[in-house]
Amino acid sequence: MAVQFELTKRYIEELKDLIQAGEEKKVLQLIGDLHAADIAEIYDEINIGEAKFLFLLLDGEMAADVLAELDEDDREKFLKVLPSDVIARQFIEKMDSDDAADVIADLSEKRKKEVLLHIDDVDQAGEIVELLAYDEDTAGGLMAKELIKVNENWTILTCLKEMSKQAAGVDEVYYVYVVNDNDILKGTVSLKRMLLSQNRSKIKDISNTDVISVKTDTPSEEVANIMKKYDLVALPVINSIGRLLGRITIDDVVDVIKEEAEKDYQMASGISEDVESTDNVWLLTRARIPWLLIGLLGGVLVAKVIGLYEIDLGMYPEMAFFIPLIAAMGGNVGVQSSAIIVQGLANNTLGIESTFTKLMKELTVAGINGITLAGLIFLYNVLATDSFALTLTVSIALFSVIIFASFFGTFIPLLLNRIKVDPALATGPFITTLNDIMGLFIYLMIGRILYGVF
Amino acid sequence: MAVQFELTKRYIEELKDLIQAGEEKKVLQLIGDLHAADIAEIYDEINIGEAKFLFLLLDGEMAADVLAELDEDDREKFLKVLPSDVIARQFIEKMDSDDAADVIADLSEKRKKEVLLHIDDVDQAGEIVELLAYDEDTAGGLMAKELIKVNENWTILTCLKEMSKQAAGVDEVYYVYVVNDNDILKGTVSLKRMLLSQNRSKIKDISNTDVISVKTDTPSEEVANIMKKYDLVALPVINSIGRLLGRITIDDVVDVIKEEAEKDYQMASGISEDVESTDNVWLLTRARIPWLLIGLLGGVLVAKVIGLYEIDLGMYPEMAFFIPLIAAMGGNVGVQSSAIIVQGLANNTLGIESTFTKLMKELTVAGINGITLAGLIFLYNVLATDSFALTLTVSIALFSVIIFASFFGTFIPLLLNRIKVDPALATGPFITTLNDIMGLFIYLMIGRILYGVF
Repeated sequence: MAVQFELTKRYIEELKDLIQAGEEKKVLQLIGDLHAADIAEIYDEINIGEAKFLFLLLDGEMAADVLAELDEDDREKFLKVLPSDVIARQFIEKMDSDDAADVIADLSEKRKKEVLLHIDDVDQAGEIVELLAYDEDTAGGLMAKELIKVNENWTILTCLKEMSKQAAGVDEVYYVYVVNDNDILKGTVSLKRMLLSQNRSKIKDISNTDVISVKTDTPSEEVANIMKKYDLVALPVINSIGRLLGRITIDDVVDVIKEEAEKDYQMASGISEDVESTDNVWLLTRARIPWLLIGLLGGVLVAKVIGLYEIDLGMYPEMAFFIPLIAAMGGNVGVQSSAIIVQGLANNTLGIESTFTKLMKELTVAGINGITLAGLIFLYNVLATDSFALTLTVSIALFSVIIFASFFGTFIPLLLNRIKVDPALATGPFITTLNDIMGLFIYLMIGRILYGVF
Repeated sequence: MAVQFELTKRYIEELKDLIQAGEEKKVLQLIGDLHAADIAEIYDEINIGEAKFLFLLLDGEMAADVLAELDEDDREKFLKVLPSDVIARQFIEKMDSDDAADVIADLSEKRKKEVLLHIDDVDQAGEIVELLAYDEDTAGGLMAKELIKVNENWTILTCLKEMSKQAAGVDEVYYVYVVNDNDILKGTVSLKRMLLSQNRSKIKDISNTDVISVKTDTPSEEVANIMKKYDLVALPVINSIGRLLGRITIDDVVDVIKEEAEKDYQMASGISEDVESTDNVWLLTRARIPWLLIGLLGGVLVAKVIGLYEIDLGMYPEMAFFIPLIAAMGGNVGVQSSAIIVQGLANNTLGIESTFTKLMKELTVAGINGITLAGLIFLYNVLATDSFALTLTVSIALFSVIIFASFFGTFIPLLLNRIKVDPALATGPFITTLNDIMGLFIYLMIGRILYGVF
């Protein structure tokens, strides 16, 4: 039985040594019966020359599987060094249509045409061209053409025969789709149901007509939500008149679900591209500096705001002590509020409450938190400082900042979503900076007034 | 064909009116052929009395499905008002073993026993008791007992007959598991392969022995990573001697994948419980106040640090202008670094680089960002202020803070992970606060030195 593979530094070193020495047999022994996904992981750790050596050792089917599993940037590097006819015949022809289209989509326009011309199977080339036409973030971009379909008027016996032919090209069956004479999707029939029924029954009579499907232009986020909600492992894709065009399988959608959830986290953390710690320094820098520049600009604006109160600060330097506290609390509350809204929007779990109800609820939460925290800092300052003006200023400002930050944190992502901008933009550095500026303005203004009074 | 259901305010109002009027028939018409997941969504929007009315109208199978789909807190509320024998006979007996165990696990100890005693099918009760023994965050806690298994020595024909019996209790087949006479897992055989082979072939000869499995105590995060990596829709679970105990299906793991990704985001946003915007004010407050208290404590410590420099600030109040900028940039950089590490740890994509290599790379990125940003703020201050001491202080401090914040942001989550603490703790308010304190200390210290020089 297969044991789960664990990549170690020692393993990679041994492999590299064997490749260097050109020991083809020993390399094959070491790779043994690894899964394509494991071999793809190895590619992350070796150089392009070693990768090429390894690729040539793999048999065709496996090489194509590994190529489909590689990261986009690794794949691009690798395909660059291969001629178009090798790509077409050794890889593309052995892939499922959705993987093949993904690989070809990353090539330059010129190379795309070359590779397509070298595919011998005209049907397959046609399917790939069809898939390439769909936006990659839609159901059309996710679907594969491989599926098993049967006519509603067939008997189970005819079906089983027909399926034996079709099944050879399909990795996993999951559902058998039922269509009418015009290829319009009418339902599904499970293999289990066929096993349990008489061979002479008509498909029509044992099929489940209550089938959920999506159109080619359904956004992939919606596809993911549907498959997650209804626990589907495969989802048929139809065109506008209901004709069955392909199916989306859960493994592709798991990636979408994960990427969507991670994208929101990355946005909130001020990372603008999908990077991993194994990426190179240049990529890591590029993904991070845009938000830092926004933070810097925000900091300069905040400096301007504080500058308006230079004289006050000269007279009451203790006012400066609580500047970071006010700024940080505004930021924290804003990030909390926006995270809840952004996750709710992404998961479609905001419910049917109106924006007004949501804001009221959020402000109630903010009110409770604000009173608690302002109360605590009031007690602390009563004990720790002898300036009552400062004590009162910090508490009133903290309460106000918490209320404002919750309001912005809730309202801005909802507003962005309404005007079709990604609401995750409103999390992270953007909302933090906005709340910094607003919070300090409130703090210093209240301070000026109260120091005048007491 | 089923159209995707969309919950609207009007729909809920109509439903509530019909329930109030006791119009059973019309309610059933309105609910029509909704999926259990859709009905579960409706339960979020109606009160407990209305929910009970609706439940009694549903037929048994559907009622059990809806119960399995409900949020844990909704389900608890609802089960509280039902007697134990109704729970056992109307719901539990109609559920798959994993869903049944999940529902029972949420009951009080006393109710658990009562419900188990009321289950008429002794085998089912035994299975549930077995499943209840596993930690819910392990493979044992995720698996269901329902699966189809065949003996390796059977022929396809015997198999098909046996499977017809077993299949009735299994929702989705996916794979047929092959075991030996001692119930030890030997491989899988696909329905497709059976369709394509002779009826007299032995299972042994057409089965795939290269099957990935997990033990009952494998953590659910690892289960999710394995299923995602190898694109599996079902994963068999074995005990320490290899006996087949159950299987985990992808729909349960999709939830784990999503929850894991979201948990890290929530931690980074300072939210300590899994809350949604539709939760009540009390839950929303409780999830948020712990991190705000940490932020408040941090703010007070920062105030103490700045307090050490009260005299300097009285003399050079313009030093206060850039306090928020230094604090915010330290926070932003720390959050970026820690997010990359935390995501890498969660996805197992940190590669085989050593901690030292990672830190060096991170510091290089920080160096590039630090020089760029410090350079920009230097230029700005040369133009905007006439204090060279301030100009130099801000730039040097900004550079140092970026370096330190990257170091902590990378090192602390790796350290926490090493000592088996959730590394996500090191994101969000905690790392922000630490960087605030350290950053301002550096800033004010450099300021004191440079103002002394210039």
